[in-house]
Amino acid sequence: MEVPKPKCLEHPINVPTKLLMGPGPVNMPLRVHNAMMKPMLGHLHPEFTQVMDEVKEGLKYIFQTTAEVVCCVSGTGHAGMEATMCNLLEPNDVILIAQNGIWGERAADMARRHDADVRLIKKPPGDVCSLNELESALLKHRPAVLFLVQGESSTGALQPLEGVGALCRKHGVLLAVDTVASLGGVPFFMDSWEIDVVYTGSQKVISAPPSVAPIAFNDRAMEKVRTRKTPIRSFYLDITWLANYWGCDGLPRKYHHTGPVSSVYALREALSMVSEEGLHALWSRHSSCAQRLYSGLEALGLRLFIADPAKRTPTVTTICIPEGVDWMKVTKYFMSKYQVEVSGGLGPTAGKVWRIGLMGYNCIPENVDKVLKIMKEALANEPLLKSNL
Amino acid sequence: MEVPKPKCLEHPINVPTKLLMGPGPVNMPLRVHNAMMKPMLGHLHPEFTQVMDEVKEGLKYIFQTTAEVVCCVSGTGHAGMEATMCNLLEPNDVILIAQNGIWGERAADMARRHDADVRLIKKPPGDVCSLNELESALLKHRPAVLFLVQGESSTGALQPLEGVGALCRKHGVLLAVDTVASLGGVPFFMDSWEIDVVYTGSQKVISAPPSVAPIAFNDRAMEKVRTRKTPIRSFYLDITWLANYWGCDGLPRKYHHTGPVSSVYALREALSMVSEEGLHALWSRHSSCAQRLYSGLEALGLRLFIADPAKRTPTVTTICIPEGVDWMKVTKYFMSKYQVEVSGGLGPTAGKVWRIGLMGYNCIPENVDKVLKIMKEALANEPLLKSNL
Repeated sequence: MEVPKPKCLEHPINVPTKLLMGPGPVNMPLRVHNAMMKPMLGHLHPEFTQVMDEVKEGLKYIFQTTAEVVCCVSGTGHAGMEATMCNLLEPNDVILIAQNGIWGERAADMARRHDADVRLIKKPPGDVCSLNELESALLKHRPAVLFLVQGESSTGALQPLEGVGALCRKHGVLLAVDTVASLGGVPFFMDSWEIDVVYTGSQKVISAPPSVAPIAFNDRAMEKVRTRKTPIRSFYLDITWLANYWGCDGLPRKYHHTGPVSSVYALREALSMVSEEGLHALWSRHSSCAQRLYSGLEALGLRLFIADPAKRTPTVTTICIPEGVDWMKVTKYFMSKYQVEVSGGLGPTAGKVWRIGLMGYNCIPENVDKVLKIMKEALANEPLLKSNL
Repeated sequence: MEVPKPKCLEHPINVPTKLLMGPGPVNMPLRVHNAMMKPMLGHLHPEFTQVMDEVKEGLKYIFQTTAEVVCCVSGTGHAGMEATMCNLLEPNDVILIAQNGIWGERAADMARRHDADVRLIKKPPGDVCSLNELESALLKHRPAVLFLVQGESSTGALQPLEGVGALCRKHGVLLAVDTVASLGGVPFFMDSWEIDVVYTGSQKVISAPPSVAPIAFNDRAMEKVRTRKTPIRSFYLDITWLANYWGCDGLPRKYHHTGPVSSVYALREALSMVSEEGLHALWSRHSSCAQRLYSGLEALGLRLFIADPAKRTPTVTTICIPEGVDWMKVTKYFMSKYQVEVSGGLGPTAGKVWRIGLMGYNCIPENVDKVLKIMKEALANEPLLKSNL
């Protein structure tokens, strides 16, 4: 008795065109799509390792680092988080995690799976940690690693990072930072901010497809990896193998795993576009589009979830759901009438906010204006909001 | 002092067109490339979960299973292997691994990282295990899990699987099988062969880009996962989360991670092509192209590394390097003159064999003939072989 051919594969694939103004992934430029039309290469062919080298240079630029170990995990953003945890942590290592949204929770979950001793600094969703709070917590918990999220996409909060690295060095702590939802949208300087490990996603500001997670480990972080007493609990995410495959250790490349070739092409093109625009221009585009969005939303009588502008990441804006409004009817209105995605909350903000993403290719004034226009229309349309869309 | 823009990203990406006749990845049909031109969707949009559902149906067909948990790990083949190990194994669990090439070594490495008690059945490269050998080893080691590789791409060996599942059930053992280099090229029946866990790669016979690893866990395997006493040492590869994201558990999908959207489109199209051709036709195409290759190679006076035709996987053919021939000069001749990839050995076969892949899109008589023609030319060209190419 054989399993028959599936009927559902007889019809063509159905993928509508949407404008993705949620917290990611975002639409991709044609140039990035085109890169995936390039022919397949072997994962160790010299032309492919050349592309990998170019990706590395692009990542050093966007991370602002001269660290040697800059590469990609062959998985999406969560794989970058897991690579951070499994490489840095040994059983009973103390890790201090700032938890002010879903990402801190996820990081804590992963760290516990690696038998780390997880300590939390809990902050209300939308809030961030001050240097004083961080130093007190470092003194109290004496962690091996401090984990922070720069852009908390579940709340829209932006964790300030200047000075944190210096604190960590003072107390002999490694600093790991998640920049999945922020990198490229706000200033970030791995080296001058003394950040030891950073990772990001490909499908946010970078505007490549999800499937690779850029990651960097500086010498302090690699020293911790090299002096582990227990094996890294993953072969796939083992940073020493990844560093070799990506040509970061000065040794001949060995076969570790088959990299996601087409996705690396796409990332290379997306990073070229970042480099051509330049980081300062990119940051400023995100900042000015976010300002335009804030003003427009406030003009509609909406209140931003994060009152203090300095605590907002421009990449993900969170908006309080007004009294009496069914948030889901609004997001459905965006989607069903305009095929535009804006999102509801996630984790601690579920049901409390909308989230509007301004990232990379989609972060242009025209898209801000379109979102504002539709939001105005949706909110003015009370009967519609009360009916079933 | 900022890190400057990289010069290397100023020029266009350079990707030559090659014919990939090594052990994978392989070239992709235009239809698969085209799928990656489709617009990005959110990782939980209904149109994307529809594509995921279609992928699942295609995977059930190619795995020949009605198991509920059939999905993809968002990583390449090695991530499938790691997902198998980290979900099935707890510390001190005994796993029996047949080691007759690099894949058994890799599996053992991963299993040890999860603190399993690894026992090996070692066989010479190119050989496989008989049912008797497997049963003796099961009785001797009393493992929780038996791990086999169907198509050993480092040696070209094909492990027979009929009867192994029944043995495993008799002895209360879970059977996990790696089919990265074989699935679609040879018969495989997860359910009727009573295989508990199987995974494969996307970039071999399926002819999609590397970046997703299809995987299936049957009820026996899921029961082991559900009754674990210790947490799965990975969040990203946790099969209970993956099963939920892929809609395999009957519960509403939760946000686990962002799936590799474009790669899933590509996999969907590649699986449609598998389904349209039909498994029997696909297996038969691989078998007949392999026969054509064997005959042609023997006509050139070459000797196959695996003498017994029943022990060869049609997907990867290993050829003994004739006395006095520099294997690398031959592979370089293929590449530099024709941009055709044939590979050297890997792991235990390094320096001893060439490996020729016949997989999926590239597995056609025309490509077999091209490889044979070039091989003949290369071997006839002794002065060329002795000079530096």
